Amino acid sequence: MIGRLNHVAIAVRDLGAACAVYRDTLGAKLSEPLPQPEHGVTVVFVELPNSKIELMEPLGEGSPIESFVERNPGGGIHHVCYEVDDIIAARDRLKGQGARVLGTGEPRIGAHGKPVLFLHPKDFLGTLVELEQV
Amino acid sequence: MIGRLNHVAIAVRDLGAACAVYRDTLGAKLSEPLPQPEHGVTVVFVELPNSKIELMEPLGEGSPIESFVERNPGGGIHHVCYEVDDIIAARDRLKGQGARVLGTGEPRIGAHGKPVLFLHPKDFLGTLVELEQV
Repeated sequence: MIGRLNHVAIAVRDLGAACAVYRDTLGAKLSEPLPQPEHGVTVVFVELPNSKIELMEPLGEGSPIESFVERNPGGGIHHVCYEVDDIIAARDRLKGQGARVLGTGEPRIGAHGKPVLFLHPKDFLGTLVELEQV
Repeated sequence: MIGRLNHVAIAVRDLGAACAVYRDTLGAKLSEPLPQPEHGVTVVFVELPNSKIELMEPLGEGSPIESFVERNPGGGIHHVCYEVDDIIAARDRLKGQGARVLGTGEPRIGAHGKPVLFLHPKDFLGTLVELEQV
């Protein structure tokens, strides 16, 4: 069911410092910062040949990554995102197997303009999993 | 400098249960379990179209992932692995920028039979980074 590893997301307090680590120290190519007020984050994509790293900084009040960044002030991996062909079919299959889908269970439009869902880390090896329909 | 995202490694207590999550719940293709006594782990690769997830279980006494699994009994992301063309050049560049290389600083032969190094999580956004020469 799952397809490509779309991205690995790393949440940080200071996006500028995080960009310096990936651009200057690791020598990777970065996108421009993209504020996403509807998601409460500003993101930069590290563009690798086969996938992406999404660097995320909290934006505005009540950012969904604020508590994560408070618990992990030096940063940390926040989630992994797998691509699926049909997010509704994927959701129904997962729920049928007893896996928990976060929120209302209805897909939202994610950071790339595509429908996404998040799955409960306790059902996926301590890893927050995003599914994105591509 | 960094190239492809070679894999994301998830450490777990129970490799069989972890395989069931990726094979049965997420519908992915898995390799056979590969015991690596010289690394203190047994691994299974989740084969995605563009990258891999490495599921790791402690093997034997003094496994290097034993303490991680004790701290994260439900599992968790242990490291990400980026490919580099020349691991000695990469190491020297990183050390020149003040980044900490773990262990002796000399590459070891990793799980794929290639030279690898690990970088200090505190210098890389709270993320343990493996570099693998390909």
